[in-house]
Amino acid sequence: MVKINENYLKLKAGYLFPEIARRVNTFAENNPDADIIKLGIGDVTEPLPQACCDAMAKAVDEMRDRATFKGYGPEQGYPWLREKIASHDYQRRGCDIDASEIFISDGSKCDTGNILDILGDDNAIAVTDPVYPVYVDTNVMAGHTGPANDEGKYEGLLYIPITADNNFTAKVPTDQKVDLIYLCFPNNPTGAVATKEHLQEWVNYAKSVDALILFDAAYEAYITDDSLPHSIYEVEGAKDCAIEFRSFSKNAGFTGTRCALTVIPKTLTAKASDGSEVQLWQLWNRRHSTKFNGVSYIVQRGAEAVYSEQGQAEVKALVNFYLENAKIIREKLTAAGLTVYGGIHAPYIWVQAPEGLSSWDLFDKLLNAANIVGTPGSGFGAAGEGYFRISAFNSRENVNEAMKRITENLKV
Amino acid sequence: MVKINENYLKLKAGYLFPEIARRVNTFAENNPDADIIKLGIGDVTEPLPQACCDAMAKAVDEMRDRATFKGYGPEQGYPWLREKIASHDYQRRGCDIDASEIFISDGSKCDTGNILDILGDDNAIAVTDPVYPVYVDTNVMAGHTGPANDEGKYEGLLYIPITADNNFTAKVPTDQKVDLIYLCFPNNPTGAVATKEHLQEWVNYAKSVDALILFDAAYEAYITDDSLPHSIYEVEGAKDCAIEFRSFSKNAGFTGTRCALTVIPKTLTAKASDGSEVQLWQLWNRRHSTKFNGVSYIVQRGAEAVYSEQGQAEVKALVNFYLENAKIIREKLTAAGLTVYGGIHAPYIWVQAPEGLSSWDLFDKLLNAANIVGTPGSGFGAAGEGYFRISAFNSRENVNEAMKRITENLKV
Repeated sequence: MVKINENYLKLKAGYLFPEIARRVNTFAENNPDADIIKLGIGDVTEPLPQACCDAMAKAVDEMRDRATFKGYGPEQGYPWLREKIASHDYQRRGCDIDASEIFISDGSKCDTGNILDILGDDNAIAVTDPVYPVYVDTNVMAGHTGPANDEGKYEGLLYIPITADNNFTAKVPTDQKVDLIYLCFPNNPTGAVATKEHLQEWVNYAKSVDALILFDAAYEAYITDDSLPHSIYEVEGAKDCAIEFRSFSKNAGFTGTRCALTVIPKTLTAKASDGSEVQLWQLWNRRHSTKFNGVSYIVQRGAEAVYSEQGQAEVKALVNFYLENAKIIREKLTAAGLTVYGGIHAPYIWVQAPEGLSSWDLFDKLLNAANIVGTPGSGFGAAGEGYFRISAFNSRENVNEAMKRITENLKV
Repeated sequence: MVKINENYLKLKAGYLFPEIARRVNTFAENNPDADIIKLGIGDVTEPLPQACCDAMAKAVDEMRDRATFKGYGPEQGYPWLREKIASHDYQRRGCDIDASEIFISDGSKCDTGNILDILGDDNAIAVTDPVYPVYVDTNVMAGHTGPANDEGKYEGLLYIPITADNNFTAKVPTDQKVDLIYLCFPNNPTGAVATKEHLQEWVNYAKSVDALILFDAAYEAYITDDSLPHSIYEVEGAKDCAIEFRSFSKNAGFTGTRCALTVIPKTLTAKASDGSEVQLWQLWNRRHSTKFNGVSYIVQRGAEAVYSEQGQAEVKALVNFYLENAKIIREKLTAAGLTVYGGIHAPYIWVQAPEGLSSWDLFDKLLNAANIVGTPGSGFGAAGEGYFRISAFNSRENVNEAMKRITENLKV
């Protein structure tokens, strides 16, 4: 009799975004004429950089001809892409990361989930609250938690609150030792950013207790102050205790094109039960070779073009466009009397719901009254209750229209 | 202190193909002038169908323009692709499979590994011997086995021999109950094919003991006798006990382009420990949404074009081309006195090594003496010892040249 992985039964309701999609679809079916503006899921709206499209068109043409056709590539990604990333994203900023330490993948979401494959089942795990739900759900699926309580918190996870009270910085635990810590800066969902000092505290902590930091830098392109770290490897000692995830989704708009990367320094080790140290690079390389077949050649050529002169200019323009949206959202909502956070070094604005409204109350209210879709903060964790995430990914026209409608319906 | 998943330490040496690559690279470095012909890894060599390239070129152009740009797609794949697959690959052959039961992914290798995520850790698992190493290695990684013995067999797995002695058919176990069975037909590596009667035996068995069959149909396009089943769902009762994996890699040459699919009928259930039945579709859908972000839009458009009239004609020509290679290989090796199997409904020829040579002996001999790369049968399992897999994926010219060189060096 074949048995299921029962840990899946512990998962609360739907994954946040499918649940939002379900509510929006129901509303749309009942209100076919409604002009719904989506500022919910963090999906980009502007076209891909022309440099990326040019490169992919060329790659498609290569596939037409036996002489230039590409079959299986290296599972880890093509060297020409890994080298450009190493040089541009890391070495240029003083991070001693080699191309061989970069693994190309089809998504950061996948990688932040799959990384658990190479780690043990008895690590003490910490996440922030609110948090990107994938970190939590993949741990639930892997059996690293008990059931959820009424607040939606899973037994066995340490939740580190990041709220207005602590200026959205994640405090290093003092009363409990953790082995594995998920950090995401610029943060999804709060839009907060980490200083070098803040990350240094975490690296120092991780090194002191032999913990591993899983650092999600998917939004690093939105950092507008050059003194802030884009990578955790800008922090002394991080190569001994951190894995970093990056993506082409939010800088170059690859959400539907699919390319990302994970950095695992070769110096990074974790323990076997006999106390011996095992290189994590080696384990991930084995996983990547056995359970993955590399990213589409065509897509990797598109990602490579991000590093061309034209690609860099186009990506910068894209990011600036969304950041200008974020600024408009911040200003309009503030003018409407709302308290807002984030949106300066991130494409997300974290809005405090007006007194008396829960996150989902505000979601339903905005959907029904203003036909605007945002993301309920409580979907990101108990400490997100009373907050609401608005994404800056949309056209200027839609952002302006959305702000007009929200202002009219929510004037405080 | 962060701990690793120690099950990885049980894995024997390298995954087969990286190990081959290592030996070939070493040889190539030492013999820079050698004209190496690779008939090892099952990678295609002919260009993509023009219909697929045309569709992808169009899709790339859509990404240039805000009005036609595509961000995140449905994690499960676009309906237009799922519907074409359901209709063409399944309903047309009398299989009652709905589009919603088809999940698009970036590879069958990934899916056959990832499927274990939704299954329990205490299932009794059977594989054939020889077998595609990914089925075994992913179970080792997931902790479903003990260590390997000297033969390379992992404790806790049931190995069902498929050899010349039993005409390469996998016998249903009579003395042991299994919960999970991996079957691959047309078979990798032996090139054998399954009749409907053979699959019916397995379906009957699975239904009688509530087992689940993981059916890998990656090579179904190579079946040349229309009375043979392309899908396990052509067999009565399979919708209640089987998951099927398919790929665009070997029919349309997508090994470097990346697109595959997994079919999970909604009628398929497995048990929780309290005896309740849980729909596997629902669990996989949750996994797919949480740990995957869908296949590149551009690539999905390429896959869709496989089902156009032009695409179908081009895929047929590709498959026939490789099958003609297989025929040449069979004939030449037979004429040279070797005993060969497979290669009629599959792109693989399973060669018996000449008396006294092990699989790796023959690998090294062919590499050194003839500069030909094949795959040692023992890399697929203990019962593959003494066999050697030759792939029909190459140009006609290379196949002819390779046969000439092998014949000269191996004349029995």
